[in-house]
Amino acid sequence: MAAVDWTGNPNVEERPVHGVSLSKMKGILSTVDTCESSFTPLVVIELAQDVKEETKEWLKSRIISPKKDGGAQLLFRPLLNKYEKETLENQNLYLVGASNIRLLLGAEAVGLVKECTDGAMRAFTYRTRHNFKGFHVRRLLTSGIVTQVFPLHDTEALKKLEDTWYTRFALKYQPIDSIRGYFGETIALYFGFLEYFTFALIPMAVIGLPYYLFVWEDYDKYVIFASFNLIWSTVILEVWKRGCANMTYRWGTLVMKRQFEEPRPGFHGVLGINSVTGREEPVYSSYKRQLRTYLVSLPFVCLCLYFSLYVMMIYFDMEDWALSLHEDSGSEWTSLLLYVPSIVYAIVIEIMNRLYRYAAEFLTSWENHRLESAYQNHLVLKVLVFNFLNCFASLFYIAFVLKDMKLLRQSLATLLITSQILNQVVESLLPYWLQRKYCARVKRKVRALKSDVDTTLYEQVLLEKEMGTYLGTFDDYLELFLQFGYVSLFSCVYPLAAAFAVLNNFTEVNSDALKMCRVFKRPFSEPSASIGVWQLAFETMSVISVVTNCALIGMSPQVNAVFPESKTDLVLIVVAVEHALLALKFILAFAIPDKPRHIQMKLARLEFESLEALKQQQMKLVAESLKEESQEEEKEAAACRMPATLPQPELRNNCITPGQGGDASLS
Amino acid sequence: MAAVDWTGNPNVEERPVHGVSLSKMKGILSTVDTCESSFTPLVVIELAQDVKEETKEWLKSRIISPKKDGGAQLLFRPLLNKYEKETLENQNLYLVGASNIRLLLGAEAVGLVKECTDGAMRAFTYRTRHNFKGFHVRRLLTSGIVTQVFPLHDTEALKKLEDTWYTRFALKYQPIDSIRGYFGETIALYFGFLEYFTFALIPMAVIGLPYYLFVWEDYDKYVIFASFNLIWSTVILEVWKRGCANMTYRWGTLVMKRQFEEPRPGFHGVLGINSVTGREEPVYSSYKRQLRTYLVSLPFVCLCLYFSLYVMMIYFDMEDWALSLHEDSGSEWTSLLLYVPSIVYAIVIEIMNRLYRYAAEFLTSWENHRLESAYQNHLVLKVLVFNFLNCFASLFYIAFVLKDMKLLRQSLATLLITSQILNQVVESLLPYWLQRKYCARVKRKVRALKSDVDTTLYEQVLLEKEMGTYLGTFDDYLELFLQFGYVSLFSCVYPLAAAFAVLNNFTEVNSDALKMCRVFKRPFSEPSASIGVWQLAFETMSVISVVTNCALIGMSPQVNAVFPESKTDLVLIVVAVEHALLALKFILAFAIPDKPRHIQMKLARLEFESLEALKQQQMKLVAESLKEESQEEEKEAAACRMPATLPQPELRNNCITPGQGGDASLS
Repeated sequence: MAAVDWTGNPNVEERPVHGVSLSKMKGILSTVDTCESSFTPLVVIELAQDVKEETKEWLKSRIISPKKDGGAQLLFRPLLNKYEKETLENQNLYLVGASNIRLLLGAEAVGLVKECTDGAMRAFTYRTRHNFKGFHVRRLLTSGIVTQVFPLHDTEALKKLEDTWYTRFALKYQPIDSIRGYFGETIALYFGFLEYFTFALIPMAVIGLPYYLFVWEDYDKYVIFASFNLIWSTVILEVWKRGCANMTYRWGTLVMKRQFEEPRPGFHGVLGINSVTGREEPVYSSYKRQLRTYLVSLPFVCLCLYFSLYVMMIYFDMEDWALSLHEDSGSEWTSLLLYVPSIVYAIVIEIMNRLYRYAAEFLTSWENHRLESAYQNHLVLKVLVFNFLNCFASLFYIAFVLKDMKLLRQSLATLLITSQILNQVVESLLPYWLQRKYCARVKRKVRALKSDVDTTLYEQVLLEKEMGTYLGTFDDYLELFLQFGYVSLFSCVYPLAAAFAVLNNFTEVNSDALKMCRVFKRPFSEPSASIGVWQLAFETMSVISVVTNCALIGMSPQVNAVFPESKTDLVLIVVAVEHALLALKFILAFAIPDKPRHIQMKLARLEFESLEALKQQQMKLVAESLKEESQEEEKEAAACRMPATLPQPELRNNCITPGQGGDASLS
Repeated sequence: MAAVDWTGNPNVEERPVHGVSLSKMKGILSTVDTCESSFTPLVVIELAQDVKEETKEWLKSRIISPKKDGGAQLLFRPLLNKYEKETLENQNLYLVGASNIRLLLGAEAVGLVKECTDGAMRAFTYRTRHNFKGFHVRRLLTSGIVTQVFPLHDTEALKKLEDTWYTRFALKYQPIDSIRGYFGETIALYFGFLEYFTFALIPMAVIGLPYYLFVWEDYDKYVIFASFNLIWSTVILEVWKRGCANMTYRWGTLVMKRQFEEPRPGFHGVLGINSVTGREEPVYSSYKRQLRTYLVSLPFVCLCLYFSLYVMMIYFDMEDWALSLHEDSGSEWTSLLLYVPSIVYAIVIEIMNRLYRYAAEFLTSWENHRLESAYQNHLVLKVLVFNFLNCFASLFYIAFVLKDMKLLRQSLATLLITSQILNQVVESLLPYWLQRKYCARVKRKVRALKSDVDTTLYEQVLLEKEMGTYLGTFDDYLELFLQFGYVSLFSCVYPLAAAFAVLNNFTEVNSDALKMCRVFKRPFSEPSASIGVWQLAFETMSVISVVTNCALIGMSPQVNAVFPESKTDLVLIVVAVEHALLALKFILAFAIPDKPRHIQMKLARLEFESLEALKQQQMKLVAESLKEESQEEEKEAAACRMPATLPQPELRNNCITPGQGGDASLS
């Protein structure tokens, strides 16, 4: 508490928080001293069973000692003091808490920038208190001393959130701001995007349904549907950017500076000085990183892609085999068999995607990127390329090599529906079921303890300790990305795709919410300004969809019927139209501003102020230096006036005081 | 001079300059008082002949009165005091000068940001002293009171610049930094780009020459040449971006904030408050602007495009007529006639381009854009679309409709060479010749005056007053852009194009330098961070060139010979290759960072510092407000302790002093 003098001059070294509303700050300041004794556990640390007593003591001292001694200045308490005698199995669980003042400093260290003048003030003291990732602790994690570190769920707040979110099933918007309050911006943005995307799919589904019901085999209005698809995919992505900017501006993360990110927890290297911030941190040569990326990761990814194509060819063999079996017997029973290869292939694709995901994560970790964002970009790129090929290669092959539209439709439907069902079961329902079974077991066990002490916290820690860890929004976005691919690439062949996607997403919102609240440990909150690299991924997909849709249109028998004698003319016209559409797409993307006008204005204002502040600070520096230099000159002049017999060094020291005095009276 | 207290606390309202090196600043400060009396004329103002005496007085007062009274705080002197009796014709010429301190303030107002720590300090007191555009004065210009405003050439500096630049003909780099010192960043960037582009063309020219000399009619290595063209055009543009960032970072304009641009001189509207800077300035509704843009400008541009296509069809009629005439007579003489339509058409194109340019300028002015950059963007878009169609439509028509490669080659060569010769003559040589004639006349006239006074300045003003006004780098970039089009779009048909372009550019550098130094009035210096919208224009052209080159390859007889039976397969393969190339192009553009790494680091550092400064400023504000509020509370508490019989308002006023005193002792 001694480090910051809140009323007088703020201690610059500690970099105190700015931008918190005055009344709030005063409230916090007045409660600081009184609340300090009430310990609210924020994060649980589990140590390995064989950790020595000295290690524990060292860890404890690292956590509780003040920042100026290199500690984390947090509160620390073992969970099991009271229960230690009853159960011997969980003796290494510790709780970490934080004083309010420390939370404010933490929010500051994350570098949040917010608007101070409008009414939508952000009470970040409560909302970002889960931001403590404890970088040192993370290194202990990789070395096996610490088993896991996780924040505890806030049961009351969680209950409230669940009530407004998914437990009462009704058609309404999600409480995005509350989700963001509890889980942080990254996860709230995912749910916001999921909701937006679902609503954006509805027009496609609505137009697709009659196509399916009435003109199933009639490709007549095919061209209209595909054209609508093109415009739709461009516009929704542009509109999302604006909506996203609106949201993150309100949350204060839009102008958050990504460059000043701390190095990511897994990052290791020789300790050095970061040339941007001037702070000490590990440094790793980007040359080595590039060697690892291009000489190991790239060949590995290529090998995986080859393997995926190999599996695809096996699928086509199976397809042939099933078809020949069906034709040989010709019974009703074997017609069902026709779907078996697709279903099996869909399951194999899912398994391969998941396995590859682990390999990609391992490789990207090993590439040792300094920033979490760089790590994410490399991981996303690796996984996207593979998943894209793995999921869509067979469809492209059927569409453009086999040119079998019936098989394409059947294959698309099977892949889409199978992967959606699989995802929901594997992601949420199965873990939830396992979780409930474990929960009942823990409750029984805790009840067997003496009931004279309050066991709520103990029970909660035991329960959440065994929950799965949420590994970030990556898989969820990936699922949406692949869905977007199924809907936009080939939907004119299978117009029901959008309808299935909408149905899936309505349940997905709920199952994902369940997953976040009940299946996983509470994740560390991460601020973010946008959906990041996924925006680019979706945009790339929409460009690819323009090309495939044009090609599908060109291949349709109706369009071919218009040019009965010259196929070359047909191809040329299709290519010309495709180029025009792509040009239109880029012009659209260019003409629609990424940020709404009012946000552009506010951002410009913020930048202007920041620049002005820097100028004034530097001017003050210049003025001070000028003053100092003139003092120096004064001193030297004074020194010269003295008789030369006296020893010079002592003399000059004596002269300083009158020199300074003279200058002070001048200024 | 009284407005700024340089040694003590800087006057915030005047926003003093930051970032100037200490020694420099001290030097400037010490010379301020002594140099003030020596008047160096910077800008000449010419008033109309019929301006009243009161208007002159008012103008003078606006220019010389200090900033706090709404004046420009500059020095002002009539040119002709001494010569008034001798000549009666030029009685309305005035000279405007500025004190050094005013120049510093001006540099500050432009918003320059520079690095303070490295050795490449920018002595902007001398280099940006031509930045005074006098917005008020500009309004007088449009109303016809002021005939013209222009800065004077600095004859000595100009002589020095010319010596290192173009008068001594030798193969060497241009003195870009000196050019920037004399003419400002925008013009220096143009010459930098011209030089870079010329060097970038050399590989194309070197590869093109043997194609022309040995395999003129042999399209065999055609594909290689076109592929090289594709990669070349992508890479040179990416590399230029990095080089440009390097240059402008050194000049301090890279991080200059475009948002805080003052409104452009021609901009008019109702006076209001700019919501970004909080400064008072004219405001014009963007709704009205868009109405003008879409309801007037857009239809006009479309009409012009139609007219251009109409002229093109006339050209093809002429071509047919010349051909039939040649075939009828069959003589040597009429074979020369075949080139006449192309040459006439090339001249007509040039004339149309120039006429359209004036119309586009008028329309864009009338759209009333607030910022110079927005004005430029709209003007460039208008002119580019028209010039592109005007210059290339006939070539596209010949290549893809007539499919006459011989005519294409002949037409391309004629267009390219004619336009280059025309440009150099019309732009530089002709005006220079006229200029010299006028110069001799003026010299004779001045010599006729009495020679007892120094007439150098008088002669210079008379000379420069009649020089043309340089209207910005627009036309120069446009010329390069069209040249880039000729070289990259169809060069595989006419590989000599690049060689001609290189030749042209070597002389262009010199004729442009001559034009800048001897033909035009010295332009007002404008800072800029990049070549702006031209980068995008060149990139778009390179995308179009990928498409045309692929199409040309697909049409070549050699490639057609490979697919004798199926033309459709050929088209499909060409399209596939084209898509792959475009994808490669975008990946390349994405993978090559726009700014070199060391500049990214420095920019990140600057942003980090600026953010930190803002934080500290805001924190100080919060601390002060907290203090004030606690004082308020103190006061209220003190008021409550007083007996209620006294009248409240007076009492509270009396209580303030002890309350403040008590608080001061606490803090």
